[in-house]
Amino acid sequence: MHRIDSVDFFYLAMPEIRDIGDGSQDALLVRVRSGNDEGWGECEASPLVTMAAWCTPMSHSACKPVSASVLGQPLRDAADMARMHQLTRAQSLDLLQTDHLLSGVDIALWDLLGRRHQTPVHALLGMDKAHPKIPYASQLFGDTPQETLEKARAMATHGYQAVKFGWGPYGRASVREDRDQVHAARQGLGPDARLLIDAGTVWDDAIEEAAARLPALREVGVTWLEEPFVSAAFSAYRSLAHQADAVPLAGGEGCHQAHQAINMMDHAALRYIQIDTGRVGGISSAHRVAQEARARGVTFVNHTFTTHLALSASLQPYADDPHAVLCEYPVEASPLASSLTDHPLRLDANGQVLLPDAPGLGVAPNMEIIRRYHQPVLMEVAGQRLLQTSSEF
Amino acid sequence: MHRIDSVDFFYLAMPEIRDIGDGSQDALLVRVRSGNDEGWGECEASPLVTMAAWCTPMSHSACKPVSASVLGQPLRDAADMARMHQLTRAQSLDLLQTDHLLSGVDIALWDLLGRRHQTPVHALLGMDKAHPKIPYASQLFGDTPQETLEKARAMATHGYQAVKFGWGPYGRASVREDRDQVHAARQGLGPDARLLIDAGTVWDDAIEEAAARLPALREVGVTWLEEPFVSAAFSAYRSLAHQADAVPLAGGEGCHQAHQAINMMDHAALRYIQIDTGRVGGISSAHRVAQEARARGVTFVNHTFTTHLALSASLQPYADDPHAVLCEYPVEASPLASSLTDHPLRLDANGQVLLPDAPGLGVAPNMEIIRRYHQPVLMEVAGQRLLQTSSEF
Repeated sequence: MHRIDSVDFFYLAMPEIRDIGDGSQDALLVRVRSGNDEGWGECEASPLVTMAAWCTPMSHSACKPVSASVLGQPLRDAADMARMHQLTRAQSLDLLQTDHLLSGVDIALWDLLGRRHQTPVHALLGMDKAHPKIPYASQLFGDTPQETLEKARAMATHGYQAVKFGWGPYGRASVREDRDQVHAARQGLGPDARLLIDAGTVWDDAIEEAAARLPALREVGVTWLEEPFVSAAFSAYRSLAHQADAVPLAGGEGCHQAHQAINMMDHAALRYIQIDTGRVGGISSAHRVAQEARARGVTFVNHTFTTHLALSASLQPYADDPHAVLCEYPVEASPLASSLTDHPLRLDANGQVLLPDAPGLGVAPNMEIIRRYHQPVLMEVAGQRLLQTSSEF
Repeated sequence: MHRIDSVDFFYLAMPEIRDIGDGSQDALLVRVRSGNDEGWGECEASPLVTMAAWCTPMSHSACKPVSASVLGQPLRDAADMARMHQLTRAQSLDLLQTDHLLSGVDIALWDLLGRRHQTPVHALLGMDKAHPKIPYASQLFGDTPQETLEKARAMATHGYQAVKFGWGPYGRASVREDRDQVHAARQGLGPDARLLIDAGTVWDDAIEEAAARLPALREVGVTWLEEPFVSAAFSAYRSLAHQADAVPLAGGEGCHQAHQAINMMDHAALRYIQIDTGRVGGISSAHRVAQEARARGVTFVNHTFTTHLALSASLQPYADDPHAVLCEYPVEASPLASSLTDHPLRLDANGQVLLPDAPGLGVAPNMEIIRRYHQPVLMEVAGQRLLQTSSEF
């Protein structure tokens, strides 16, 4: 019987990490092997902390390293995947970082299963068809409205039908300055393109701060306001939704379990649920959320700011949903992230993104790029070497 | 102005860690220093993973090591504490392990502030008085009903008015065997003592599994059924509560933010909210939950299975609530945990626990015990030493 034989981690980083909201400056890749097959995944997570969750000594029966529930487990089908999740949940219940780690492992295992059976992951999930998605170009606000306007114009020139601006100065400045920023974005895009705004949890749970920005968001006709608050601030989300009128709320990228996303849909009045497959527990969890979203009339959309490995993994879970037409598409990724895969998911003639009709995720990392950015890691407890990665591979 | 000058971690472990539900087999202590003052805290968390969250390299502006938001920050009063939490939340938003780490740091900082001002922590929180609590002896089910009966008798002999049994075989065996276990517990305790049952999330979110155990729990008159499901399974909790009738539900120890506990109170139909100060974000977060619980008529109770440092920290946040009369009191702690503090919180003549009327937490660890169980840690990335602890101190 096929089992999970090995799991290896590759911590990549740009030579300089800047203090900006760009999550593509480092990456934690996961490679799994089973028999003669191999698969790759990516955690959207702090690499060192996530690697520690793999190798940490056991604290007690519900606080074990994640490796204890993964290595040597059977790997034949979706039922085995579900059993592995269940075992990890039980044995690493009290290890908070678990879900961020399991996400990358789950993605790599689905990729492996797809390659073994020569089938795309979304077909393994039972989908007949992958619908093309309209990519929204995801980028940071400029430091000034003028800079934002120029960025928006460039995106319009590239033909993007949807553009998101987020982070940067937005929400930290005055209501008036924030108004100037969103008007600059609309002016640069023109009247037809979808405009999405991401507040990046900047108001924590302060409803009045968010509410003060609603009029400007209405004026420029945004598709959504994303993450006015931290994911768990359900009552703040609900209160804002009552005032938001024509401004739909989006959120959920911070969810690290399917249950949390379900709770947000049920109790935070979201119209869009944004799921990062590299955080929520992988493709298995994201697929469950996508199904629960359809059942509730909430629109699922991926959260992806990094590589095209992560992008493919994040599109598989809702590929067959014809009503969930948008997808996040990274356009400002670091050289590390943008060069990682040889065959990125390009836009077609209609400016849309379609998942590759290829085994597994249909994309794989380039080993030369991995070598170029690799950061070796060493962890020891009481003189015992728990994990050591080297650049020799 | 006083600032946070240093934060040091001490990873302690028993020589052998057994694969049982005993969270006292290791410990992560935190020592903070500011000027001439010192304070101690404890994270209820995987030590190595938590230490990695302190020293990990920055990934981006919202995924920084927790040290970036703690070291050098002002430390004068509760407002400074709130600012430090806010900064950490913003700068380590995407680092999942953050809350488990911040918990121990927050506890140590409150202890330090109390010692500096020669005031108990609960007084610093604005409380006039600390009410004595009825300790419930917290222990694991025996492997057989006979063993559980003997453990229950021993607790009754020691004078405990409330006893909790949990984990072990409960919930994994048949409904009939689980019935025998809870009847054995009741028989051993006698008719008057409070009996509490902890399912330890064993049914994940399977409502019918939990519902099948309700009749036996009613027969023996339990005070609560704890954690039938994982913390985030709100709809499962709600459905069970509808059927549970005379069996109140308790849960919440897995919450790692105040918001999550508030959401559980609002949407999971809990009658008791159980908060581990070493996980939820420390005394600051636990105190917020305690206040929100009172406002909702939900009863707050601590979750503590480890040391008396953790016990003191977990009682401070609800010390002044006269209606929250119970407290969890560890009776099966490992030699490491039971010997850590020189002045444990003993039971008074009425069999109740009262917080020490002493500065800070009123308990401190014994350095000899720390030395005895200390596990040195080394972490390196790309040849750079990020954290190294030694047993020389």
